[in-house]
Amino acid sequence: MGELLDNVNSPADLKSLSVQQLGTLADEIRQLILDSVSKTGGHLASNLGIVELTLALHYVFDFTKDKLLWDVGHQCYPHKIVTGRKAEFAHLRRAGGISGFPNPTESEYDQFIVGHAGTSVATAIGMALGEELTRQKTEHRTRATSDERRATNKIVAVVGDASIVNGVSFEALNNLGLVKRQLLIVLNDNSMAIDPTVGAMAKYFSRVRLSQTYEDLRDTTRKILEHLPGIGRSVEEALERIKKSIRMVLPASQMFESLNIPYFGPVDGHDIGSLIQLFGALSQLKRPAILHAYTKKGRGFKPAGFEPSKFHSTGPFKMNGDEAEPTVATSKRTFTTVFGKRLAELAEKDKRIVAITSAMCDGTGLLEFRKRFSDRFYDVGIAESAAVDIAAGLAKAGARPIVCIYSTFLQRSFDQVFQEVALQNLPVVFCVDRAGLVGSDGPTHHGLMDIGFLRMLPNMVLTAPANDTEVRLALEFALAQDRPVVVRYPKDLVPSREFVRAACSKPFRLGKSVVVKKAKGSAIAIVSYGSVLAEALKAANSLAKQGIPADVINARFAAPIDEQIIALWGEGKSIITVEDHNLACGFGSAVLELMTTKAAHGRKRNALRVLGAPRELIGHNSRSSQLMEAGINADEIVRTAKEMLAGQRPVRSKPRGRRPVRGRQGR
Amino acid sequence: MGELLDNVNSPADLKSLSVQQLGTLADEIRQLILDSVSKTGGHLASNLGIVELTLALHYVFDFTKDKLLWDVGHQCYPHKIVTGRKAEFAHLRRAGGISGFPNPTESEYDQFIVGHAGTSVATAIGMALGEELTRQKTEHRTRATSDERRATNKIVAVVGDASIVNGVSFEALNNLGLVKRQLLIVLNDNSMAIDPTVGAMAKYFSRVRLSQTYEDLRDTTRKILEHLPGIGRSVEEALERIKKSIRMVLPASQMFESLNIPYFGPVDGHDIGSLIQLFGALSQLKRPAILHAYTKKGRGFKPAGFEPSKFHSTGPFKMNGDEAEPTVATSKRTFTTVFGKRLAELAEKDKRIVAITSAMCDGTGLLEFRKRFSDRFYDVGIAESAAVDIAAGLAKAGARPIVCIYSTFLQRSFDQVFQEVALQNLPVVFCVDRAGLVGSDGPTHHGLMDIGFLRMLPNMVLTAPANDTEVRLALEFALAQDRPVVVRYPKDLVPSREFVRAACSKPFRLGKSVVVKKAKGSAIAIVSYGSVLAEALKAANSLAKQGIPADVINARFAAPIDEQIIALWGEGKSIITVEDHNLACGFGSAVLELMTTKAAHGRKRNALRVLGAPRELIGHNSRSSQLMEAGINADEIVRTAKEMLAGQRPVRSKPRGRRPVRGRQGR
Repeated sequence: MGELLDNVNSPADLKSLSVQQLGTLADEIRQLILDSVSKTGGHLASNLGIVELTLALHYVFDFTKDKLLWDVGHQCYPHKIVTGRKAEFAHLRRAGGISGFPNPTESEYDQFIVGHAGTSVATAIGMALGEELTRQKTEHRTRATSDERRATNKIVAVVGDASIVNGVSFEALNNLGLVKRQLLIVLNDNSMAIDPTVGAMAKYFSRVRLSQTYEDLRDTTRKILEHLPGIGRSVEEALERIKKSIRMVLPASQMFESLNIPYFGPVDGHDIGSLIQLFGALSQLKRPAILHAYTKKGRGFKPAGFEPSKFHSTGPFKMNGDEAEPTVATSKRTFTTVFGKRLAELAEKDKRIVAITSAMCDGTGLLEFRKRFSDRFYDVGIAESAAVDIAAGLAKAGARPIVCIYSTFLQRSFDQVFQEVALQNLPVVFCVDRAGLVGSDGPTHHGLMDIGFLRMLPNMVLTAPANDTEVRLALEFALAQDRPVVVRYPKDLVPSREFVRAACSKPFRLGKSVVVKKAKGSAIAIVSYGSVLAEALKAANSLAKQGIPADVINARFAAPIDEQIIALWGEGKSIITVEDHNLACGFGSAVLELMTTKAAHGRKRNALRVLGAPRELIGHNSRSSQLMEAGINADEIVRTAKEMLAGQRPVRSKPRGRRPVRGRQGR
Repeated sequence: MGELLDNVNSPADLKSLSVQQLGTLADEIRQLILDSVSKTGGHLASNLGIVELTLALHYVFDFTKDKLLWDVGHQCYPHKIVTGRKAEFAHLRRAGGISGFPNPTESEYDQFIVGHAGTSVATAIGMALGEELTRQKTEHRTRATSDERRATNKIVAVVGDASIVNGVSFEALNNLGLVKRQLLIVLNDNSMAIDPTVGAMAKYFSRVRLSQTYEDLRDTTRKILEHLPGIGRSVEEALERIKKSIRMVLPASQMFESLNIPYFGPVDGHDIGSLIQLFGALSQLKRPAILHAYTKKGRGFKPAGFEPSKFHSTGPFKMNGDEAEPTVATSKRTFTTVFGKRLAELAEKDKRIVAITSAMCDGTGLLEFRKRFSDRFYDVGIAESAAVDIAAGLAKAGARPIVCIYSTFLQRSFDQVFQEVALQNLPVVFCVDRAGLVGSDGPTHHGLMDIGFLRMLPNMVLTAPANDTEVRLALEFALAQDRPVVVRYPKDLVPSREFVRAACSKPFRLGKSVVVKKAKGSAIAIVSYGSVLAEALKAANSLAKQGIPADVINARFAAPIDEQIIALWGEGKSIITVEDHNLACGFGSAVLELMTTKAAHGRKRNALRVLGAPRELIGHNSRSSQLMEAGINADEIVRTAKEMLAGQRPVRSKPRGRRPVRGRQGR
């Protein structure tokens, strides 16, 4: 760690440093981030770019009482480092270590657990309104004199150029007029989402950016500081003066002006001295305002600067001169890479196929597709709602859209999937990546609810491939349907060859499961949905060794449910369902529902148990540890099977992980 | 019906009319709408305002091949009248009659079933991209010569000033650059959502509107027509000319210009002659553009013009001079009015309470609250996502926000409820109105999924009052919790006194049900969630008369589920759960899930059956008919109870309604 950084244990320690020292500190922080992330993996480029901005914010504001709201939140590493968490960086995103996102349970300096984009301005509006309300109430109750009155806490929302075009951001900006007090929005413009930002506003920002020299930025800063409202001068007056004194017509401000938001900028987001002055002056405004700052993603690290997409979120790597080499082999086959390859093959034959993603081209495995079929590829930026509506329109016009969005972000499109797709019965295919537990990104990114919110929809078919072969079969099936189909798969490697069974090579048929293992004399059937088939087979092998024969069924569909699964019950078999999803509303729940309408009369001694994740949060950790914690693995299947055969009432054999988890409702 | 309207049976019949005749026809259509809606109820004011715009669109375009997309869709009555559905207006929104929203199964002139706001631009983008794709494919395949090439179908999206500020609209506008061909957006600006539109853009539009005289509008129209691009002249060039020739600085266009969208207007949306010329000219543009037209909500009907909020959606009424009097008494007590009254009482005592709604102040019963506590009331416009985030910020700052959104529109906030509220465990109260089947608005408006998508969330408590008393108790309970709570209730009258039982007067305790009726010797327990308790009691009475004793339990909570309900099973009772929600993922499903983890060993001959709505669509109809169709009523409970006691496998005793419905999975 650097010399200055050694002595920075809280934001208060920044206040005694000179601007020059702060600059040196910024470099030391960048070095710490590089050292840590190269070992642990994590979000790199955005954090390298936001160091100076973060230092200036903490220098000017006092975030023990002022409130700092991050958008998306993965750019909070410098913030974590100066708010007492630098020592924990060795365990970033690892079990027991700090999270890669803001988290109020870690620090009083964090307000919200975030991970999804576009929320900082809206939550900041709420906090500003709430602070005023509770302040007035306090004053009223204590009959405070004007001296005693609690000072207004300042509120700062930091939002990136990729997030500000999200629908929620826009709705918030349109409602910023609700706030009649200070609220500073810092627009951190690095011209990038994970990929270069797209859409009209991004183009607009880029045009302005290209026209600005370093001198222009300094000039703008000077003019803003010169003209900022002093006593008796209004914001409007100041804005007029600033506009007149800056040669350009402030094109980037048009958007904000039309929404009646005072706009200041653009300024250099790496010039700490100026930022400190700007924040100091703008914090005095008695109304919301926006400061537009340019930063460079991946600043100070050549590979990240050249390839910010690659180093947006990275695994461990080591430096070799100016090159960064991954230390973990990335050639392994994941569901995502297999999907990307299969989709490109299918698109070659079927010209109606188009792919749509929301700022996740690489993450959803579409790089090859984009390269080969650029005229059939649409990236709409962080705009999941519009992505689904555009897909609905495409399907209506005869195309075959494939929507590629992570499970957790598809939650942003629930209503669009309902009204614009399912209600119309349009043939849109949703390829839901990161379905299930996601590992080191943690709770904001788990995809544990998609089966639930999608299986309620009319016309919707839900399927999940269990391995490489089934990814292709599921896609082929989905594209052959004349209705909406969801294909879900996890952030994981495809199971190794030993689990690829002949049964999984049969073509997918609507609502039909396949029997993967039939054990002679079995009293138990393990019914798995999706990639957890590997765990089901492992469990069955383990049970077989213990003299307990168990069948294994690959359900393939969560909607419609195969009635053959219910028939097993009629045959007197006990059933264990397994899925990488919330226990509530999941695949197992769908089996239970069908059972009550078909054969719910408990005439036999057989039983049914549902394995899935609890409602409680499962923190960042390795995916395999999370599956163990949630009780979605072979060991838990074996334990459950033995318990069922013993006819016991379910009791926990031993605690798993740190929290009591499975099967509890509503705690 | 008017003389001209008599002869209009399809849009083709308009083409022979003069502009003057079209004006007369507009008045005849208004008269038909007034006559019909005064008898059937429906959306009135917006439809009276959009007649001329609709006629001009159908005069210029040929929507047998061109595509017309409505936003929200409740303003489609004039469109339905000229597209062959005028005779059906006597049965508007009634069983077997036409729907109050666009519906492709009714007419080839309708593209999407819509009812939610903000989707027309996004779906239009998709259709424009899809049409190009399929056109190219066709040309490629047929090796068409340039003469033979299929003409480009025009695409028109109509969007209101209240819908265009929705996040989805903005995301779509930001992505309009994807389209490299004609796409006309008509901004129908009547300065109103259901209530006057709010937010910065609305204020902006209003300012411009107030500054415009009728002469200004005519002048703008003339200038647009003069300068519109002819052969060899670009849109950009034309826009420059138009800007220069119109005296104002086109302030309303700033927003669209910053998004690089050619903007034309504002123009008079009631001047048919000019509209025809404008649509004719603008339809020739080879790129997306926006035309901004002013219309008057409630035009031609004095009461609706004066009070457009009241006549946005109305029940039957009769005219008395210039006054309209409701023909159905509106003094009856609904869950909504009871909620509004109770909330105002609580807000009087607890100054931390704030109410937030998204353009639904009246609909969610907040009129009194707004009047009495205007400084604690926030209407954010049609921006459900931002509404929830603002509530999250308010709760974080110590306020007690009550979010009032219809169940179907809360789908727009699913991800915000998840990340910004549930994950943070913030004390936000969601008062979910229109939960369950909604009657005449039909499929886009049913609230059949809220239990499912909300009960998967961490920390979330789900409760539902069964009657008037319980509305107050549930609210008091919700406000006393230090975590998020959902209170759901239907669009219905509160049950009459005979169903108000003493058990329902007990205070709500977290996760505790109440026994409403204990029948001696009962082998069956009917467990209801929410307002369907009335049906459960009716069923129990009916069963008692037939010599079948049945207990009735008011579950009160869907998360957490009361383990006492599971205990009934242990006592050997058969259970029937009833809820006004989708059978999938609902309350009954939660009971099943808990049961498998607690006492799933079918040792006894008892059974469990879940009653809820099917995934299939339930069309517009009276709410009671819909409940019958869905099998959520006393008759169905009785039938199920008798079937269970007979130990039969479930068979349908008789068909209900027109469709086979209940309990089928995935069809």
